[in-house]
Amino acid sequence: MTLSLVLDNIDSALPKATERLFDLLRIQSISTDPEFIPQCDVAADWLVADLISIGVDASKRVTPGHPMVVGHIGDRGPHVLFYGHYDVQPVDPIELWDRDPFDPALEDTVKGRVIRGRGAADDKGQLMTFVEACRAWKEVNGSLPCQITFFFEGEEESGSPSLVPFMKENAKELTCDIALICDTGLFGDDTPTIVTMLRGLLGEEITITGPDKDLHSGMYGGAAANPARVLARIIAGLHDNNGAVTVPGFYEGVPEISDKVAAQWDALNFDHSVFLGDVGLSEPAGETGRSALEMIWSRPTCEVNGMQSGYTGDGFKTVLPSKASAKISFRLVGTQDPWKIRKAFRDYVSDQLPLDCTVEFDDHGAAPASHMATEHPAFEQARAALSDEWPNPAAFVGCGGSIPIAGYFKEILGMDAMLIGFGKDDDAIHSPNEKYDLSSFHKGIRSWARILDAMSRA
Amino acid sequence: MTLSLVLDNIDSALPKATERLFDLLRIQSISTDPEFIPQCDVAADWLVADLISIGVDASKRVTPGHPMVVGHIGDRGPHVLFYGHYDVQPVDPIELWDRDPFDPALEDTVKGRVIRGRGAADDKGQLMTFVEACRAWKEVNGSLPCQITFFFEGEEESGSPSLVPFMKENAKELTCDIALICDTGLFGDDTPTIVTMLRGLLGEEITITGPDKDLHSGMYGGAAANPARVLARIIAGLHDNNGAVTVPGFYEGVPEISDKVAAQWDALNFDHSVFLGDVGLSEPAGETGRSALEMIWSRPTCEVNGMQSGYTGDGFKTVLPSKASAKISFRLVGTQDPWKIRKAFRDYVSDQLPLDCTVEFDDHGAAPASHMATEHPAFEQARAALSDEWPNPAAFVGCGGSIPIAGYFKEILGMDAMLIGFGKDDDAIHSPNEKYDLSSFHKGIRSWARILDAMSRA
Repeated sequence: MTLSLVLDNIDSALPKATERLFDLLRIQSISTDPEFIPQCDVAADWLVADLISIGVDASKRVTPGHPMVVGHIGDRGPHVLFYGHYDVQPVDPIELWDRDPFDPALEDTVKGRVIRGRGAADDKGQLMTFVEACRAWKEVNGSLPCQITFFFEGEEESGSPSLVPFMKENAKELTCDIALICDTGLFGDDTPTIVTMLRGLLGEEITITGPDKDLHSGMYGGAAANPARVLARIIAGLHDNNGAVTVPGFYEGVPEISDKVAAQWDALNFDHSVFLGDVGLSEPAGETGRSALEMIWSRPTCEVNGMQSGYTGDGFKTVLPSKASAKISFRLVGTQDPWKIRKAFRDYVSDQLPLDCTVEFDDHGAAPASHMATEHPAFEQARAALSDEWPNPAAFVGCGGSIPIAGYFKEILGMDAMLIGFGKDDDAIHSPNEKYDLSSFHKGIRSWARILDAMSRA
Repeated sequence: MTLSLVLDNIDSALPKATERLFDLLRIQSISTDPEFIPQCDVAADWLVADLISIGVDASKRVTPGHPMVVGHIGDRGPHVLFYGHYDVQPVDPIELWDRDPFDPALEDTVKGRVIRGRGAADDKGQLMTFVEACRAWKEVNGSLPCQITFFFEGEEESGSPSLVPFMKENAKELTCDIALICDTGLFGDDTPTIVTMLRGLLGEEITITGPDKDLHSGMYGGAAANPARVLARIIAGLHDNNGAVTVPGFYEGVPEISDKVAAQWDALNFDHSVFLGDVGLSEPAGETGRSALEMIWSRPTCEVNGMQSGYTGDGFKTVLPSKASAKISFRLVGTQDPWKIRKAFRDYVSDQLPLDCTVEFDDHGAAPASHMATEHPAFEQARAALSDEWPNPAAFVGCGGSIPIAGYFKEILGMDAMLIGFGKDDDAIHSPNEKYDLSSFHKGIRSWARILDAMSRA
């Protein structure tokens, strides 16, 4: 039977697949930092060449930002679009990495062999699980069991400014029966996972200015407005004593989860002490009265992602800063409206400014939450295929992260999306020493081979 | 008469004196940053050589930190010690400088000719006013009218860790009739100024740790403690709604100013709208019910000098930070006890830490406030000499800055100190584009020549 030959091919080709992934990981495609624009281009070129090597009609597509990669292959079976992103997060604080983030390597750890490097899990390693599954199908069978459109972007870590315009301009080319997205994780080491809810994301940067230059805190301290103090007050006021966000109207459109979903989540036997214990914490720190799973999957949040003012180098400088800034993000659920919340947040900040202080806002993207169409037959086909590959049956779960592309596929192309990924909680994505388990990579490739097979037979 | 010849010499030698100051300003003696240790040494060597060139028996003295410079000259008249510091503040934000901070130049501005560069006013330019006055006396008269001990340190901008031990070890050599300190400013462009009150300074750095690594704000946001939010709450709570500091016991030892001092300050006709207007502000932002002069001279403060957490580069990174830190300083008055306040502050912070967060404290120095012995005859001698040089008579004022050396001279050497300086509010010390008016430099040198003359005649 073809599938078993494909799986055998995947097993024997794993070292070569890993080498190919290393080639991609070496490319410093940090999308948020303009210094790395050329490297993002190199990553797109690499992907085009790799797709062509397995017979895909692939090309790089220019955008006002980083390029897209689009490719097509196959002439039979259902038509699926596969989405991934080739850009990665910045690497700072660089001093906390144990190796060069862009010099990937296999490392043996107490939990098994891992692929170490920026982007190993998010999302280059995940993206390549699907590409390698296609390569194996092609090598074994000479063709693929489904029609496939590949769609890779290079701006996922920086708000995807070019994504919506590109999808609109290329709607006909990109519309398929369903989209497959590989940018999520396993619920447990042995539990394959399909994500059915994604939080939305609103990114804002506020910069408060007091004096028109940095001042000497002895000469002016006491009489001059200090923007760092103003910023601290504003941030402190964003949550009440029960951990609820205070921006007016913030909770409009936040639903309670259904009894059915609540029962599914209960069945997962999630232990927050393990989840938090892995990162040095013990108790959920969010809204009073909510479970940890609610806090990370079904409740909205407001977090400070960055904060800066005055002198932050070694030693001490008695400066009274001119400016203070913070990067703040909101995770959104249900039908919360990111644009309405942006306005409410900006009003909230502006209303609290004391005399002599001004504020500037920078927009770092906005996307509503997404709920997947779990009634689409592909969900049960994938659930069965994943359950064949892994020790435990596949679970339907929520995801606290924000993958706005799923919502865009629905809104712009009328196409449902299915999110399946093989990351683990300890992958340290967005952090120093990011890794992807070699077993995630290997079983991820095998999982996609099975899913393509299952979909082609339906 | 000798004094008028000395003043003539100063006038004609001004270009050469300016060139010498430029040589000193070119040395990157940033004391707080270990990278610049060698440059601090170079600055000390330069000063030793310059003092020797006017006949001073000068030498560099090793300390565990940056070196001291000590020199002696003269065998008649009262014995005065002159103190200044050769170290400077860091230059960031470097992008706000209009020129290389260590490539000094004369620039013509709407307010007159200025010496532009880091340290021009704080304190290299001020330090050199006294040295140049001595040089002129020596050239004209072959000798100095007073016995003089020069004492320059290189750690004033980084908490002076070596100062007290050095003064204790060299108490005999450093004890004179009175200390002259040139590190303060003019009250107004035409009003020479003797500072009679200095605020103390307590520097603290707090670092709050939540998760043991940076996290993805989607995966953990809502459930994981965010140290940036914790820090913001702590900072926001440091002042009440009337601008008073909330650290328990903080106001112990804070006196009201006497009626006599209040009358002196009233006579200065200080206009806060000009003082604050120069830096883009309009109204005093300190304690409710206090005048701006009280806020900057006679009331204690708590200011954030620096604050940092998470991702602060370009773009956006949805990180939930592991750490958040702030540099916080307190200006102290009266008999406030900096060590007692340090403990109260640390207790205050620790008491507010939520579960799963820890805090580390770094000590960045502590010094109580100082009050000068205005009954010492040198004060009236200097007031008369300054009033001869400048359009307006000299004023006795407070100073919001912290120059702990004045307190140390009294405590350790039993020696009173007199603070006279020629800086201006718009010198931008500790800020980008620091400058020192050429007229401050010129009339500063002339002022010291007159003061030495007045003291020698008493």
